[in-house]
Amino acid sequence: MTAQTVTMAHGSGGRAMQQMIERMFLQAFDNPWLNEREDGARLSLADFTRQGDRLAFSTDSYVIDPIFFPGGNIGKLAVCGTANDLAVCGAIPTYLSCGFILEEGLPLDDLQSIVSAMAQTAQQAGIAIVTGDTKVVQRGAADKIFINTAGIGAIPTAVKWAASTVQPGDKILVSGTLGDHGATILNLREQLGMDLDVQSDCAVLAPLIAPLRLLPGVHALRDATRGGVNAVLHEFAGASGLGISIEENALPVKPAVRGICELLGLEALNFANEGKLVLAVSARAEQQVLSVLRNHPLGADAVTIGEMTANPQVCLRGALGVSRQLMLPHAEPLPRIC
Amino acid sequence: MTAQTVTMAHGSGGRAMQQMIERMFLQAFDNPWLNEREDGARLSLADFTRQGDRLAFSTDSYVIDPIFFPGGNIGKLAVCGTANDLAVCGAIPTYLSCGFILEEGLPLDDLQSIVSAMAQTAQQAGIAIVTGDTKVVQRGAADKIFINTAGIGAIPTAVKWAASTVQPGDKILVSGTLGDHGATILNLREQLGMDLDVQSDCAVLAPLIAPLRLLPGVHALRDATRGGVNAVLHEFAGASGLGISIEENALPVKPAVRGICELLGLEALNFANEGKLVLAVSARAEQQVLSVLRNHPLGADAVTIGEMTANPQVCLRGALGVSRQLMLPHAEPLPRIC
Repeated sequence: MTAQTVTMAHGSGGRAMQQMIERMFLQAFDNPWLNEREDGARLSLADFTRQGDRLAFSTDSYVIDPIFFPGGNIGKLAVCGTANDLAVCGAIPTYLSCGFILEEGLPLDDLQSIVSAMAQTAQQAGIAIVTGDTKVVQRGAADKIFINTAGIGAIPTAVKWAASTVQPGDKILVSGTLGDHGATILNLREQLGMDLDVQSDCAVLAPLIAPLRLLPGVHALRDATRGGVNAVLHEFAGASGLGISIEENALPVKPAVRGICELLGLEALNFANEGKLVLAVSARAEQQVLSVLRNHPLGADAVTIGEMTANPQVCLRGALGVSRQLMLPHAEPLPRIC
Repeated sequence: MTAQTVTMAHGSGGRAMQQMIERMFLQAFDNPWLNEREDGARLSLADFTRQGDRLAFSTDSYVIDPIFFPGGNIGKLAVCGTANDLAVCGAIPTYLSCGFILEEGLPLDDLQSIVSAMAQTAQQAGIAIVTGDTKVVQRGAADKIFINTAGIGAIPTAVKWAASTVQPGDKILVSGTLGDHGATILNLREQLGMDLDVQSDCAVLAPLIAPLRLLPGVHALRDATRGGVNAVLHEFAGASGLGISIEENALPVKPAVRGICELLGLEALNFANEGKLVLAVSARAEQQVLSVLRNHPLGADAVTIGEMTANPQVCLRGALGVSRQLMLPHAEPLPRIC
């Protein structure tokens, strides 16, 4: 690749595009399905049916700004995000597709860094990027790079997680500190200039989730991304017709993130995460689930933050025991967080 | 929805986004998987294994400009394009994911038209849009709307189509006239102002392809989109190590498209199509395949345009019998054609 930036030719069906596919994508994502270079990957169905009885299928587009941030970049995020959506369905994330929309003028070095991060993150998680597409739009028609990933993976037969199955009395757990990703991006974007001791928690959660598939009493899982833990709580409440009581004192928040929240008058509960689970589990299963989560580095700070209630409201109980209703905001504090 | 345009709030994890999902997407795409509103769709693996032994998985992002054009819009294109990529793998296109990237300020009426076209096209083709994602970026950070679709479907066990299996002497067939989509977009975009009697051929090709799965002698299929038929010919040549000889006189091109080509000095072979197949079939199978294709309205103009050769070049033989090498252009004539 002699050119230093992405050109319109890289998005055409011509030779420039073929060269970019060969020299950048095929090399980084190297696997037999992609290397066949057909219009789609052809995957063995027997490999899925050996693992489960259902296939999870999920997609997300990533438009984060800035595209590089402490703890990751848009490429790492695009693999983690979709892998996590599959994993919280109970699936084993196995194959991803990848669609790039590139702005003319994007430095090829930036694209290479992003592609390398995708390849490395996928490989470490045992995921293959098996099919893809690249489009280039003129300068000004997109902002640097957008990535879509879709993913598939088998769901083991025993797993029946769904938000509609949560019960009154179920405990609400989180797998670690809240808002690290959102606070990191907010600090960068708003040029708060704080020397924050915090970085994005962007991570593939599949290894943390895998042992939970064997535990009874796990009712529903979500990764708390856009909209934060608050959005997940409202999903659990909406799907079950129940309410939730959260203990404000129990919320694990890093001091740096708490500082940003107090400075700006924001709630860490509304901040995006890219490597945190919210779980609804039976009271009997609570301690075992906590211990399984804490057994993995990604779940070291796992804690119970509240429980499902028959009263169909999401409430936050403060230090003095006073409870207030937690509303889902009309919009989140920060656009293009993922 | 009281607002008349897409706002940043529609892309947040908050209430505005929930409302758009419920009132627009869930209503249009209505199906049990999407209605579960989990982070991914959960699909029965048994449904796939009843149909075949492999799963095809493909993706494309759509960035076409303009987003509405004679014969379709970006939404219809996003369903047809990915369905066709699955179908030429030999698969039965069954499920799609859908990722929207919306520019702040996009009229909601435009989005509704696009979503309705997607829903209608998918429904007619027996395809369900089962999982999705919506992002909104600020005005100027994207151009109106980009759509990514990924798709999956089972490949029946008997189907072994692959570009690597084409043989010397195989006939090269196309399912109809070349370049209708490219010429339509070129006429709109460059404001040639020609009163063209031509519209995009944008269509789901699965019903045309389905009976081919039962025929012996079909070696490889492609839909000739970006890069046109020329790009497919080079893929067949590259994957097989063979060459191709094309008869210029045999190329089916509508008079209006031929006119645009002559006006601008372009080749219809390089123009994008969104509803045309290129096939490599054994000489013995040629007549039967042509007859099966012509039996469907989408293949009424199917014709043989050339054959695979041992000489590893792609050549175009003109009216006087003189052959010239057909190169893959460095870039195609028109960006954002799909």
